[in-house]
Amino acid sequence: MSTIFTKIIEGVIPSYKIAESDKFYAFLDIKPMVKGHTLVIPKQETDYIFDLEDNLLAEMTVFAKKVAKAIESTIECNRVGVMVLGLEVPHAHIHLIPISKEGDMNLSNPKLELTQEQFVEIAKSISERVII
Amino acid sequence: MSTIFTKIIEGVIPSYKIAESDKFYAFLDIKPMVKGHTLVIPKQETDYIFDLEDNLLAEMTVFAKKVAKAIESTIECNRVGVMVLGLEVPHAHIHLIPISKEGDMNLSNPKLELTQEQFVEIAKSISERVII
Repeated sequence: MSTIFTKIIEGVIPSYKIAESDKFYAFLDIKPMVKGHTLVIPKQETDYIFDLEDNLLAEMTVFAKKVAKAIESTIECNRVGVMVLGLEVPHAHIHLIPISKEGDMNLSNPKLELTQEQFVEIAKSISERVII
Repeated sequence: MSTIFTKIIEGVIPSYKIAESDKFYAFLDIKPMVKGHTLVIPKQETDYIFDLEDNLLAEMTVFAKKVAKAIESTIECNRVGVMVLGLEVPHAHIHLIPISKEGDMNLSNPKLELTQEQFVEIAKSISERVII
């Protein structure tokens, strides 16, 4: 059975898309820690990020860097933090989180509640700045 | 002035070394969130990880993967989580954190207190399993 992320890539489940290449897909986390919180995933279904083949892992990081640069230039922040946990969805994903202070990446923080209009606007602003 | 991490690479400040290549260095975090918490840094002093040139960033991730595989085979965990914040030391560093549950990567958790003997033993066990 496909993972929820594969269904997002296929468009079966809608997402606020940020960027896409032949191998990767980036979209807004719908339970964001902060505005602009984005997930980067490989199109190849692999549960654990460190089980990705070296070249694909390397390419994924460079893709994530490009997305991070677009987030930085859109969302007010000090820099973009990175987190990979992978215990919930069995499809590797990199969290890109624009942070101003360490506490912005604290997993016990309450998640932001955004409206559909806010998600659409954030996705549009970031995606326009991505240079793949 | 050199960063504290450059001083660690140069051996001016001691560290519990896990692995080293011509471009990267890995060592135990002395304020670990869990046993086996490791930092991976580039030898080139760069504050922000996404300012690393694409190739170096890609190579750093593959180096980190190799270290993560050694951590996994040494420390009991579900997988190795990844975190990059970078607000404290102006020298890019990837946290590799062996986790069993999401809460293991909660920044508000109290840090572990380990003895020098414990650090030495953990570093020895992990470093023996690193295949660069």
